[in-house]
Amino acid sequence: MANVEINEVSEVLKQPDRFVWIGLHEPSSEVLSQVQKEFCLHDLAIEDAHSAHQRPKIEMYGNSMFIVLRTAQINKQEHRVDFGETHFFLGKNYIVSVRHGSSYSYTDVRTRCETTPQLLRKGPAFALYAVMDSIVDQYFPVIHGMEQELEMIEDKIFDAKPDRKTTEDIYHLKRELLEMKRAVSPLIDISNRLMRFDYELIPEDTRPYFRDVYDHSVRVNETVDNTRELLTTALEANFSLISISQSDVSKKFAGWAAIIAVPTMVAGIYGMNFKFMPELDWPWAYPVILIITFGLSIGLFILFRRSKWL
Amino acid sequence: MANVEINEVSEVLKQPDRFVWIGLHEPSSEVLSQVQKEFCLHDLAIEDAHSAHQRPKIEMYGNSMFIVLRTAQINKQEHRVDFGETHFFLGKNYIVSVRHGSSYSYTDVRTRCETTPQLLRKGPAFALYAVMDSIVDQYFPVIHGMEQELEMIEDKIFDAKPDRKTTEDIYHLKRELLEMKRAVSPLIDISNRLMRFDYELIPEDTRPYFRDVYDHSVRVNETVDNTRELLTTALEANFSLISISQSDVSKKFAGWAAIIAVPTMVAGIYGMNFKFMPELDWPWAYPVILIITFGLSIGLFILFRRSKWL
Amino acid sequence: MANVEINEVSEVLKQPDRFVWIGLHEPSSEVLSQVQKEFCLHDLAIEDAHSAHQRPKIEMYGNSMFIVLRTAQINKQEHRVDFGETHFFLGKNYIVSVRHGSSYSYTDVRTRCETTPQLLRKGPAFALYAVMDSIVDQYFPVIHGMEQELEMIEDKIFDAKPDRKTTEDIYHLKRELLEMKRAVSPLIDISNRLMRFDYELIPEDTRPYFRDVYDHSVRVNETVDNTRELLTTALEANFSLISISQSDVSKKFAGWAAIIAVPTMVAGIYGMNFKFMPELDWPWAYPVILIITFGLSIGLFILFRRSKWL
Amino acid sequence: MANVEINEVSEVLKQPDRFVWIGLHEPSSEVLSQVQKEFCLHDLAIEDAHSAHQRPKIEMYGNSMFIVLRTAQINKQEHRVDFGETHFFLGKNYIVSVRHGSSYSYTDVRTRCETTPQLLRKGPAFALYAVMDSIVDQYFPVIHGMEQELEMIEDKIFDAKPDRKTTEDIYHLKRELLEMKRAVSPLIDISNRLMRFDYELIPEDTRPYFRDVYDHSVRVNETVDNTRELLTTALEANFSLISISQSDVSKKFAGWAAIIAVPTMVAGIYGMNFKFMPELDWPWAYPVILIITFGLSIGLFILFRRSKWL
Amino acid sequence: MANVEINEVSEVLKQPDRFVWIGLHEPSSEVLSQVQKEFCLHDLAIEDAHSAHQRPKIEMYGNSMFIVLRTAQINKQEHRVDFGETHFFLGKNYIVSVRHGSSYSYTDVRTRCETTPQLLRKGPAFALYAVMDSIVDQYFPVIHGMEQELEMIEDKIFDAKPDRKTTEDIYHLKRELLEMKRAVSPLIDISNRLMRFDYELIPEDTRPYFRDVYDHSVRVNETVDNTRELLTTALEANFSLISISQSDVSKKFAGWAAIIAVPTMVAGIYGMNFKFMPELDWPWAYPVILIITFGLSIGLFILFRRSKWL
Repeated sequence: MANVEINEVSEVLKQPDRFVWIGLHEPSSEVLSQVQKEFCLHDLAIEDAHSAHQRPKIEMYGNSMFIVLRTAQINKQEHRVDFGETHFFLGKNYIVSVRHGSSYSYTDVRTRCETTPQLLRKGPAFALYAVMDSIVDQYFPVIHGMEQELEMIEDKIFDAKPDRKTTEDIYHLKRELLEMKRAVSPLIDISNRLMRFDYELIPEDTRPYFRDVYDHSVRVNETVDNTRELLTTALEANFSLISISQSDVSKKFAGWAAIIAVPTMVAGIYGMNFKFMPELDWPWAYPVILIITFGLSIGLFILFRRSKWL
Repeated sequence: MANVEINEVSEVLKQPDRFVWIGLHEPSSEVLSQVQKEFCLHDLAIEDAHSAHQRPKIEMYGNSMFIVLRTAQINKQEHRVDFGETHFFLGKNYIVSVRHGSSYSYTDVRTRCETTPQLLRKGPAFALYAVMDSIVDQYFPVIHGMEQELEMIEDKIFDAKPDRKTTEDIYHLKRELLEMKRAVSPLIDISNRLMRFDYELIPEDTRPYFRDVYDHSVRVNETVDNTRELLTTALEANFSLISISQSDVSKKFAGWAAIIAVPTMVAGIYGMNFKFMPELDWPWAYPVILIITFGLSIGLFILFRRSKWL
Repeated sequence: MANVEINEVSEVLKQPDRFVWIGLHEPSSEVLSQVQKEFCLHDLAIEDAHSAHQRPKIEMYGNSMFIVLRTAQINKQEHRVDFGETHFFLGKNYIVSVRHGSSYSYTDVRTRCETTPQLLRKGPAFALYAVMDSIVDQYFPVIHGMEQELEMIEDKIFDAKPDRKTTEDIYHLKRELLEMKRAVSPLIDISNRLMRFDYELIPEDTRPYFRDVYDHSVRVNETVDNTRELLTTALEANFSLISISQSDVSKKFAGWAAIIAVPTMVAGIYGMNFKFMPELDWPWAYPVILIITFGLSIGLFILFRRSKWL
Repeated sequence: MANVEINEVSEVLKQPDRFVWIGLHEPSSEVLSQVQKEFCLHDLAIEDAHSAHQRPKIEMYGNSMFIVLRTAQINKQEHRVDFGETHFFLGKNYIVSVRHGSSYSYTDVRTRCETTPQLLRKGPAFALYAVMDSIVDQYFPVIHGMEQELEMIEDKIFDAKPDRKTTEDIYHLKRELLEMKRAVSPLIDISNRLMRFDYELIPEDTRPYFRDVYDHSVRVNETVDNTRELLTTALEANFSLISISQSDVSKKFAGWAAIIAVPTMVAGIYGMNFKFMPELDWPWAYPVILIITFGLSIGLFILFRRSKWL
Repeated sequence: MANVEINEVSEVLKQPDRFVWIGLHEPSSEVLSQVQKEFCLHDLAIEDAHSAHQRPKIEMYGNSMFIVLRTAQINKQEHRVDFGETHFFLGKNYIVSVRHGSSYSYTDVRTRCETTPQLLRKGPAFALYAVMDSIVDQYFPVIHGMEQELEMIEDKIFDAKPDRKTTEDIYHLKRELLEMKRAVSPLIDISNRLMRFDYELIPEDTRPYFRDVYDHSVRVNETVDNTRELLTTALEANFSLISISQSDVSKKFAGWAAIIAVPTMVAGIYGMNFKFMPELDWPWAYPVILIITFGLSIGLFILFRRSKWL
């Protein structure tokens, strides 16, 4: 293990038992073209590595491999998920990683690798595995956060009153799940190819490690799909419950309207100006009518309560 | 058949005609590492076996096979389904099962196997089959319970009034079905591979048994899919019926409003204070007006009843 | 052609130019084990044959083939579809059919076969074809009945008022279609394999017959899928029309409310007890106000009619 | 080119450089059995050719090919699409077409073919292409008509008020699209097989022609799928707009109810019979109250207009 | 590099180291037949090239390749996307492009290519790549515009009141996305075949360039799918929010109706003409009743505000 200058790299590459591990973060085009020169990389790969917004993929250019992965991590302050990208150039005795956007540095990974030299001795493919593994491991808290978000939405839907915010939350979770899906689902194919195809750059004994990455990415992908399907059902359930709430409002309104309409009607009748209305002259008519009328209203109230209209 | 100490296992493994069958339940990492040493298992497999939350899968590590299955059983007290996991290490002359979470112990299976020594003689593959078969057999009461739950939901939807609880029940059944799907659908692939691929560990004459497991898991999976599709339709039907109920409420309300509004209007008219309103002086005006007005209301009532508004 | 006792079967099987055709209906386990002994059948196949609730499938056990099919027939009395099962054991010179649940007996098929001995001479594969063909032919009236049911539902949706029954009918048709799908869709694969794969038991010249079965099952399956998709659209259309109906109710109610509210308001105004209300003393005020007020109401009525609110 | 009697056909077939082209329309079983005898066709194919209601398919029977296609043409008088069927028997030196249901005769196609003898010389495969091409070409006006129908539905949904007819139109267009789909989608597979598989009956140099048919059927299929998906969205959009309309009705009703309720309430208050109500004796009370009250109503009206409730 | 007359083309084609690049825009059939003659192209390809409305495809005709692509560009004035078509004939030493409908001329692409003669030396395949690349690059602003349109729709849905226009916008964006999908999704297959299959016309060292086109088209396609799925969710969310709005209207209406109904009822009661109503004679009855009544109304108002009905 040693640190070398970037322009001495091509010297080091000639030594058979060593490999070079370079980590770049949003490099300038000068740095990239220097890297290109040292490792003899293809124009198209360098072009891709320079701009972010690539989709996860694996491409062979002669003897070197170009891999693009998406990283994801929770941004707790702004309560959202930040996506980034990491590109890799993998050769017989080198690995170059290029980070774009928000993502943790891979120095931790490197330090951890350096503690297991017997594994690191497997070559740059193991370094690639180590970084891929750390990227996929960062997916788990993200999808766990999304599952929790779904549970919060469920609670809102089933326990609270329908409000616009819940629908908006559902929509935004859907958006994030789609973004996550775009990061994870191509990774299944990538790790599958790394573990199955006969790439010269991936030694036989590192394949179980890529199978491990494959297994993790399948699990993440499955959870994303699951959450998406539940979310769709949640949206529909939410909609049903909005309708039931609306129906409840209508019922309540109708019930109270009936309770108030009856005394109003009766009052109207005894407000008529006919000359000959015998009841008007009875001394106890007023309290009796009041009692009968409000008795009716109370009767209606009890009736509606029983049939759960109120 | 004999019981051996775990550190004598490697001794026993040298005898050609015998095989070792070990069953562990949520083992500590010490036990697992002892097992690893005795059977020479791969690091990654042991790592997986230690933590639960694996997805059902089959993986070859050199000469040994690592299989993960999900178990499911009804928890009657809490009225839900408990999911667990069982991991298997299968070698030429050993099988190790590691149970996680809630699941029945496999001692029953073992006892039953010991009663058919001619089958057990087929080796650890038959033991694997026996446990897989028992796991899949436990799926049937679970999906049967889910089908019954769906029927209860149907009854609620079509016979009772719409309420929030039905929608919530639909959602929770959907959640359980998705969980069940995650347990079963990878099992189809696993048993298919066991019955078809040329694994050295699976002797020719045990393959029909794995085809049986395959067949069972396809059936469970089919029922799950079926129930899911019916549940989706049930959710939509529920929604239609909520709308119809709401429409019925509106109709009832409108009908009664009309029946009450007519006497109120008439009473208002005869409550006007015009000097020259000849009807007011007629002696029979009051009862006649009352009869006409309520006659109208009764007429409306009959009309609405006939057109099924009330 | 001859009838033989079941325990002489193994004798007959030794004769090269003959084949045995046995038809059982929900046999006891004794009969089945006798059959097993005579034809040397596999344990797992006999186990399957004993219990109903298998899914349609085809399985090879050494030299014998085990096939499960689902039967369907309309139960006119109870206005529903009865599903049953038929299992087949096919060997070089025998065919055993085991019927479960409701299905026609296959004696008719047999009689018809016996009238075309040149075809029957093709061996048990032709007998298998004859029964499969008769099973698939019974699907056609069933799916035709379902298509008619769909047309009845369409008529209800588009011509009649929305009611709960229509939604329930849609749901139950969906249920039956799913059941039908489960019977038919595996049959496509089964007949495809019989017509394409190189099974020794299926002679070259009987394959076009299985292609015919394949073709029929594809057609049935297509109709089922079609009906399902139309049914989904019908459910949605039904829902739209429920909403339109509800909207019509609201409009009608609003219209009539307005027509009645205007005279009520006017009557209220002239019911006020102000000392100085000159109109009250005008001799023609009462009839004039009445005419104006009801004129307004009639005007509203005409207006609402024109804009199709009433 | 020459016309021959049907019972001389087998004579002509012996001549190496010629081929026979026969066109039948809903033939009787006698004619069909004569055709069968002359061309040595398989029983099952003749059976299929006799009955309509086959699905589009391609089947080899020894040296002859049996093809079923669906035809579609617009029936302008009854404003719907008529579907028919055409079956083909293709042999080394013959082609027999059997038309069922509504479809144009293929004499035009034949005449056109006869004007390009250099192409017709490629044999019956070219004749098959010519008829298939003409069948597919007739699909285009049909799907164009369906696209126009969709545009009419769009106009109704977005410009007009929601009515039951629009929903019914959507449903019927969906039905026709499904029917069309059933005609077209198997054709993709058929033409793909004709252009790709090594059928002896399809000479190398006619394959580009079948690729042309393939290309056309893919285009038709794509348009059908597209229209279906748009139709589904249209149904949902229609539903949203129905809800918005309903919401608008509610708002209008609520607004006018408020405008009328205020004067009614005020009138009620001054209709009370309290002895000491000083306002009642004020000389200008009546007009002032009227102005205030209706001023309030007008204020509400303006308020509701601004917030788009009215 | 040189410009040649069209009828000298066949002369130039004989020179081994050169290739001809012709660009046509909606050519007349005379020009096309001249082109056909010079390059010996197939009738069917020329026929396709003459008419627009082809779907993107790749077809081999002997030694020449025929490719159809769809172009898309934003029409800012009319606020919509214009689709066009470009057809290519590719031979060993020529490339002919035929533009239909709205699309930029490819002279820019050509000029750019001429600045990199070392790449252009790879032959007509590189010219094909250059034009394909420029076509795909024009997709990006189009889909970016669609994503922005979706964001505008989201803002409308979540921030503004539901109106008919939003639903119409959703529908029209869906239409454009489907159109875009039809342009892009076959391109994935086309570029995949160009990069993978062993076409003689595509030299080994140009394949990475077609992989680049493939990668871009997959990205565009993914974005289109994503936007479609979000749009579907947006339509449903929109619908939920319409329902919530409607529910809010009902609540507001019910609340205000209650607030107004109470004084109206009380006024009615004291408007009754009973002789013996002691309250009527109390001197402070009128103001007291007014205060109590409106106190009740204000109490209701506060109650409704708290429970968020108003």
